[in-house]
Amino acid sequence: MFITFEGIDGCGKSTQAKMLFELLNKSGSAVLTHEPGGWDGGASLRALVLNGGLRHSWSEFYLFMLDRSEHAARVIEPAIAAGKHVICERYHDSTLAYQVWGRKLPYGPLHDALSLASLPVPNITFFFSIAPEKALSRVSKRGAADAFESEGLAFMKRVDEGYRTLAKNESTRWVVIECGDKTPDEIFECVRNSLREKGLCL
Amino acid sequence: MFITFEGIDGCGKSTQAKMLFELLNKSGSAVLTHEPGGWDGGASLRALVLNGGLRHSWSEFYLFMLDRSEHAARVIEPAIAAGKHVICERYHDSTLAYQVWGRKLPYGPLHDALSLASLPVPNITFFFSIAPEKALSRVSKRGAADAFESEGLAFMKRVDEGYRTLAKNESTRWVVIECGDKTPDEIFECVRNSLREKGLCL
Repeated sequence: MFITFEGIDGCGKSTQAKMLFELLNKSGSAVLTHEPGGWDGGASLRALVLNGGLRHSWSEFYLFMLDRSEHAARVIEPAIAAGKHVICERYHDSTLAYQVWGRKLPYGPLHDALSLASLPVPNITFFFSIAPEKALSRVSKRGAADAFESEGLAFMKRVDEGYRTLAKNESTRWVVIECGDKTPDEIFECVRNSLREKGLCL
Repeated sequence: MFITFEGIDGCGKSTQAKMLFELLNKSGSAVLTHEPGGWDGGASLRALVLNGGLRHSWSEFYLFMLDRSEHAARVIEPAIAAGKHVICERYHDSTLAYQVWGRKLPYGPLHDALSLASLPVPNITFFFSIAPEKALSRVSKRGAADAFESEGLAFMKRVDEGYRTLAKNESTRWVVIECGDKTPDEIFECVRNSLREKGLCL
C-alpha cells in the first residue's frame, strides 16, 4: 500500500507517520519517506525551496515536481514493486494545497501533472486537520520558520481550505482526521481503524 | 530585444552568441546568458541534468522549467526592464525540441508551460541548422559527452526535426540559418542581416 500523510506544518503528521512505520515494519517490510528531498541528491532541492530563495511564482511547483519524479523513480516505485508498504509524508496533494490555494496557481495543469508523468497515486491519504492557529503556534516553537511557515495565518487557512476541498472531491482515497485535542495515541487509533477498514491487517 | 540562439550541440551557436554580444555591447548595453544554469544557484541544476543522473522521464522537463523560471526572474526580466538587449543561448524551444521530439513527451502541456508561467517570449530566435552527423563529430572532440550528446545520432536527428517543425509553425519569430560549410563570419553576416531587417541598427 502507498499511504500518504498530509496537513499543514505542525499538525502532527511526522509523529503519526513514524508510529505507522514502526507498526507496519513489525509485521512486514515498510518504507518511511518524505517530500521534498526524500532521495539521494534531494537535500539540495529541499534546501533551495525551504530557504525561501526562489523568486519566480512557478519555481516552487517545478521544484516539487522534479523532486517528486526522482523520488518516485528512485524510492517509491522500487519499494512498491518489491511489495513493500510505502508511507510518505507529503506528496502531490501538498503541491496542490500549497501552490493552488496558498500561492494561487491554476488548478488544472497542476492537477494534471501527476497523471501526465504517470506518477504513483496513493491508495490512501490521511489529512490531519488542526486549527491553523494551533499549528502555527507549535511551529513557532521549533526555531526559524521556512518559506511556507513564514507566510502566516491567512496563507495557512487557505492551504487548510485546499486540503478540505481536495478531500471532499476524492472522498474514497482521503481520510480526514479532526485532531482537535486528541492525543497522538488517540489519533493513531483513528489511523489504524481506517487502515483496517481498507483491509490492512493491523 | 530578447534574442535566443538554438540548435543541437556543436552547431556553433556559442560562437555566434559571443560575436553578437560583442557587437551589441559596443553600441549599448547587452547581456549574454545561457540555459541551463545562467543564474546564481543554477550551476547545481546544470550539473544535475547534464551528468545524466536523473532517472524519471519527466525530471529533465521539470528541472529545465525550474531553471528557466528562476533565470527569467533573476536575469532576463530585470535586463529587459532596464532596456538591455538579452542574448540567451538555449531557451524554451530547446526544451520543446529535446523533450518532445528527443524524449517523446507530449507537446501540449510542454508548449503551454511558457505562457502559464508568464515567461518572456523571445522577439527573435535563431536556429543554427547543421547536419547532426557533423555536429556530433565536433562534439566528440570536446571530451566526455553530456546526457544529451551521449544519446547519439537518431536522437539528434529527432531534435533537429523538432527545431524545424517549431520554426515552421512560428515563422515570424524564427530565423533558420543553414550553416552548411559557411565560416563563422559568413554565418554572423546572416545573423546581422536578419536583425537589421527586424529594425535593429547594426
